[in-house]
Amino acid sequence: MKIGSEDIKIEFFTLAYSLANRVKGISSPNPAVGAVIVKNGKVVSMGATEPNYGKHAEIVAIENAKVPLKNATMIVTLEPHQFYGKNPPCTERIIEAGISKVFVGTIDKNPMVNGKGIARLKSAGVEVKVGFLEDDLLELNEDFFKFITTGKPFITVKYAMSIDGKLATITGDSKWISSESSREYVHSELRRKADAILVGVNTIIADNPYMTIRYKKKEYLYKQPLRCVVDPFGKTPIDSNVFSDDLPTLFFVSEKTSKDFLSYVSKANNKKYEIVSLINDRYLDVNEIVAKLGEMKIINLLVEGGGEVIGSFFDNNLVDKVFVFVSPRFLGGKGAKVIGGKGISKVEDSIKMYDVSAFRFEDDIMIKGYVEKPY
Amino acid sequence: MKIGSEDIKIEFFTLAYSLANRVKGISSPNPAVGAVIVKNGKVVSMGATEPNYGKHAEIVAIENAKVPLKNATMIVTLEPHQFYGKNPPCTERIIEAGISKVFVGTIDKNPMVNGKGIARLKSAGVEVKVGFLEDDLLELNEDFFKFITTGKPFITVKYAMSIDGKLATITGDSKWISSESSREYVHSELRRKADAILVGVNTIIADNPYMTIRYKKKEYLYKQPLRCVVDPFGKTPIDSNVFSDDLPTLFFVSEKTSKDFLSYVSKANNKKYEIVSLINDRYLDVNEIVAKLGEMKIINLLVEGGGEVIGSFFDNNLVDKVFVFVSPRFLGGKGAKVIGGKGISKVEDSIKMYDVSAFRFEDDIMIKGYVEKPY
Repeated sequence: MKIGSEDIKIEFFTLAYSLANRVKGISSPNPAVGAVIVKNGKVVSMGATEPNYGKHAEIVAIENAKVPLKNATMIVTLEPHQFYGKNPPCTERIIEAGISKVFVGTIDKNPMVNGKGIARLKSAGVEVKVGFLEDDLLELNEDFFKFITTGKPFITVKYAMSIDGKLATITGDSKWISSESSREYVHSELRRKADAILVGVNTIIADNPYMTIRYKKKEYLYKQPLRCVVDPFGKTPIDSNVFSDDLPTLFFVSEKTSKDFLSYVSKANNKKYEIVSLINDRYLDVNEIVAKLGEMKIINLLVEGGGEVIGSFFDNNLVDKVFVFVSPRFLGGKGAKVIGGKGISKVEDSIKMYDVSAFRFEDDIMIKGYVEKPY
Repeated sequence: MKIGSEDIKIEFFTLAYSLANRVKGISSPNPAVGAVIVKNGKVVSMGATEPNYGKHAEIVAIENAKVPLKNATMIVTLEPHQFYGKNPPCTERIIEAGISKVFVGTIDKNPMVNGKGIARLKSAGVEVKVGFLEDDLLELNEDFFKFITTGKPFITVKYAMSIDGKLATITGDSKWISSESSREYVHSELRRKADAILVGVNTIIADNPYMTIRYKKKEYLYKQPLRCVVDPFGKTPIDSNVFSDDLPTLFFVSEKTSKDFLSYVSKANNKKYEIVSLINDRYLDVNEIVAKLGEMKIINLLVEGGGEVIGSFFDNNLVDKVFVFVSPRFLGGKGAKVIGGKGISKVEDSIKMYDVSAFRFEDDIMIKGYVEKPY
């Protein structure tokens, strides 16, 4: 593929994507971006988004360069921004550096950018082409695109069930329904990309999870996502694993939660609580939880269970994306745990998925897709 | 592939398989077999198993031939039998016809044959090779192989569930969870191969199914499988669709079933009942049901629901093969129908599947596999 006199190899695109994907775990709430600078067919520099509103990928790549960039070509996964925000405009640095050609992966759907970055580059005489690895790049930053246009986190639901639809046996045992490869994928992909992981208190009581990333792949950078526990009445046992370390943990509680529990939370290291409205004296308002997470700049929320919490996210039309690991084993039992919630009456009114795809992890079949919803 | 002087093309194997598969629906309780006779590289005749203990494929092919078969080659999907049963030995007819080379797909696991047919051919100077399309051929007649070695039907369980594990909505609606392509597959493959289809009375009450094959593909021959209803207390409504036609239908009832219901069944066209022991005053003994079906030479039983009947087949370790259609939609609801039964306590004790594979029908993912069990 040509841009001006520069011949762009497909490897430059995949390199730019890999740079972006590598920092996906840590770039939030900024989008994960990768930039590669090429001169005379050779990569002369590269960069990726820095964490905590740090430098953008374009700037890192420009500053990393050991050669003059006059007439160089930049391959960047996302449209460079042209406005003064937490960072000065990348467009101006590109222009100042003398980069004469820019190949952009996708437009930045941020209403502040949305084509204006490209227009700015063109107005300065930079040759711009748009469009490579679009499907992968749009998926990589789908959380950012939702957040920047709605202020709400992108919500992924993940669960593992037996082929007879159970999340646990009749006695509540769920270790392990899914294969080790499935669990590795959850850690190294889903949890890595999440800013927060949320479960209900019943999951804490039944499984006592750590809710941390333990399987890591060396090609990625990781942060530990914020742990969130939906615990309307403060029933998380004080010897739970979520209290056993210093990792940030947020309890969503109600006004009916005991003072003792709240004070225990306040005194624990990096543990906090947020009071949320009770519905029917029983459930916390998940819409309020989601709004609060949005205010905290959580752009990617992973809901991991249990069945009732997941059900209430579906009942409230809050789910964007779903990963279901179907394990080819039978647990049986009428009373065993399944996805709950209020549910719907007619099959034709059911919440459907689109862009459905299936993957294999050992004998598990992972079904992935997006949830049809209006927003 | 060579056998003697004859060059065997791969198409001869697939033709023989297709001939067998074409009659799979109607050959029962005999195995479905296809035979192709080749001379000088050309197909000169072919045949397949006839229904109702009719002629075997080899005989049909020999009798169909319009040319002398001296020194011809037969490609046959299953080992020809050498004993006098309902049909005289195929081996003798092959030898008499002067066929000098036989290419056999798989050994016949029938203890009466099991290599003896091949030995007989060889002893008469026929050149024999064994082994083509083995995986497909063993699967095609897996029901026969189980039946002939155990006297019990091969039991396939099929169900469609939403991706949250529900067989129906909270109000019992299940039309249609799966895609049209999935349902076509159920009719043209699973029901076609079944000698009997079994459901519980609650499925009759909820869905009022016809339990017939309605989607047919023209490359196959069909029979309507025997309809079986597990109805311990005679609750099948007398205006149900299963009573609406003359197709054979068998009700498994208990001693507590009302005389009125039994007399209604007896008077209806082609409707019968069998009395089975009650367990806990509530369930019929599924082992007894399976034994009775075996006595009736039902070699292939398809269990289609509902959740409790399927659960009891699993609880009793009766299931050989499973087809689950996972539809990417959410029905939700704690009380919605799922696979039931007694279930197990520990995940590590769960009933596992092997030879698992996944297929796509529109947006449905079909997961197919065998159930680990001792027999």
